[in-house]
Amino acid sequence: MTDLRLPTFDDVLAAEARQKGVVRETPVLTHAALDEAAGAELFVKAECLQVTGSFKIRGAMNRLAQIPPEGKKAGVVAFSSGNHAQGVARAARLLGMPALIVMPADAPAVKVEGVRADGGEVYLYDRNAESREEISARLAAERGAVVVPSYDDFDIIAGQGTAGLEFARQAEAMGKPLDYLICCAGGGGLINGVALAFERLSPATRIWAAEPEGHDDWTRSLEAGEILANAPGTRSICDAILTPEPGILTFALGQRLLSGGLRVSDDEVRHAMRMAFRYLRIVGEPGGCAALAAALKGVPAEMKGKRVGILVTGGNVDAAQYADILSTGT
Amino acid sequence: MTDLRLPTFDDVLAAEARQKGVVRETPVLTHAALDEAAGAELFVKAECLQVTGSFKIRGAMNRLAQIPPEGKKAGVVAFSSGNHAQGVARAARLLGMPALIVMPADAPAVKVEGVRADGGEVYLYDRNAESREEISARLAAERGAVVVPSYDDFDIIAGQGTAGLEFARQAEAMGKPLDYLICCAGGGGLINGVALAFERLSPATRIWAAEPEGHDDWTRSLEAGEILANAPGTRSICDAILTPEPGILTFALGQRLLSGGLRVSDDEVRHAMRMAFRYLRIVGEPGGCAALAAALKGVPAEMKGKRVGILVTGGNVDAAQYADILSTGT
Repeated sequence: MTDLRLPTFDDVLAAEARQKGVVRETPVLTHAALDEAAGAELFVKAECLQVTGSFKIRGAMNRLAQIPPEGKKAGVVAFSSGNHAQGVARAARLLGMPALIVMPADAPAVKVEGVRADGGEVYLYDRNAESREEISARLAAERGAVVVPSYDDFDIIAGQGTAGLEFARQAEAMGKPLDYLICCAGGGGLINGVALAFERLSPATRIWAAEPEGHDDWTRSLEAGEILANAPGTRSICDAILTPEPGILTFALGQRLLSGGLRVSDDEVRHAMRMAFRYLRIVGEPGGCAALAAALKGVPAEMKGKRVGILVTGGNVDAAQYADILSTGT
Repeated sequence: MTDLRLPTFDDVLAAEARQKGVVRETPVLTHAALDEAAGAELFVKAECLQVTGSFKIRGAMNRLAQIPPEGKKAGVVAFSSGNHAQGVARAARLLGMPALIVMPADAPAVKVEGVRADGGEVYLYDRNAESREEISARLAAERGAVVVPSYDDFDIIAGQGTAGLEFARQAEAMGKPLDYLICCAGGGGLINGVALAFERLSPATRIWAAEPEGHDDWTRSLEAGEILANAPGTRSICDAILTPEPGILTFALGQRLLSGGLRVSDDEVRHAMRMAFRYLRIVGEPGGCAALAAALKGVPAEMKGKRVGILVTGGNVDAAQYADILSTGT
């Protein structure tokens, strides 16, 4: 792994320049009721309010903006359960390229519609029977297009990291530098990009991953010091963060930058969605609320009474599912 | 009316200083789907993300911060359907005063709980049989407390105006100065405070009120040039903005600062709440979405293709009602 080329803080800064005028600075929200539940002082960065409803536009802009002019006509291919899809579709439209998005047939309708609204072409596949990697590679080869990975990519990681630049600066401006930060981890593009930003701007902040029970590949891989996969077929409502295992680049960064992982159940995620509705008045999707769920179940002992940053990473959830979750539980 | 003392731009600026460290700068959000529905370029300032879930903390901080030390022990009394209640309860707690809030027995539970969570004492009355003004005056006299009106008050108007300072500056920073601004109007404290800010910072912006059908007192009063009341007993889901008629101070300002009013139906408000959920990922309460509703039904001819600012003013809505609204309609 010694010859891996990994993004650095400077790459995150360069990404920020490429996002200018497109990516929105999202607010950091607080509420005493959340602090009480967590046993810590929570600072929630609402990336669900980002353009396209998730942080994914950050990486997509950074990646697509670097495609040379001669590659623009053939455009890009991406596979994604939905948020990366929407980020790529939007970035492609803004940069004047075609985008073909390979999405599972059971992706939330709101995500499929989001891609189409930005002019993205959608190719639906069967999550249980087909390989999205193979489909994407074939379709990209047919049209000479660039495949844009959703997380294990130098520029995607650096691009997502700008959420960390903002968050570290916002915490500093509030006079509340963070002791900890919890971020959901699927493939790990966001959390490691964010960690790159904190490593420089707020080096005392320890970064933890949050992930669904049964999809605790980051937690186990970080403990083991090697990439471990999830058992196939495990289900969770957190559609946005169900990846098979940490990426090569993201795990190499994670070993240096992450302190560990926290597991959350689907019911804890639903509860976090309701708390975000009620106390922050933001719409969080299931996967987007995993980090909040990890805090609201009570933070680990070492975080008690500390300042803990939380990323709520997306808000693309179908109205029917959201209404159902609001109507049940506590 | 010539001897009325009305707040000015400088009073709004002074209010901003009193709110420092308490009031949050709320983001301005956009989405192409909203623009398409409206026929204009919309810029939505999400005051539902404000501390206490509505803009009301702005006026409350400005008013309570000016109560002299000798009045702090007896504290304040306020009457409100809920958002002003929560703003006053929070400001009182932060300033170390007791707060007694007179609320209708049918106020949303989330609002009553919000007041209590800030240590506010709640007195529930029957909206159809009792006078909240009389109850408040009696309770305030008993304890020597100050009654804090919800809109027709010099400092409340100036305090709400800081939302306008932010909005005008944000639009300017985006390079998108607003041609129009639509804001809901109940008593008119917010819209006129905001208009004071725009009068100085963005004088070309024309300000319109949005209000529920049957509670179109501002629309009719502005047309008539005199204060006209709503017919008693008219119902609407917009609980936050159901006031009997424009205030004395707010109407005097409104005659100078407002261009007119727009009426919205309950169904149009429900639709706006769903659009805010889906495209902005914010939770808006019914009254808080009246201005958005007025735009999404199609803006008036003179606003077509223009830049229109929208204030979404609150997000305190019970989960059951919200789930019900998400589950119906388009």
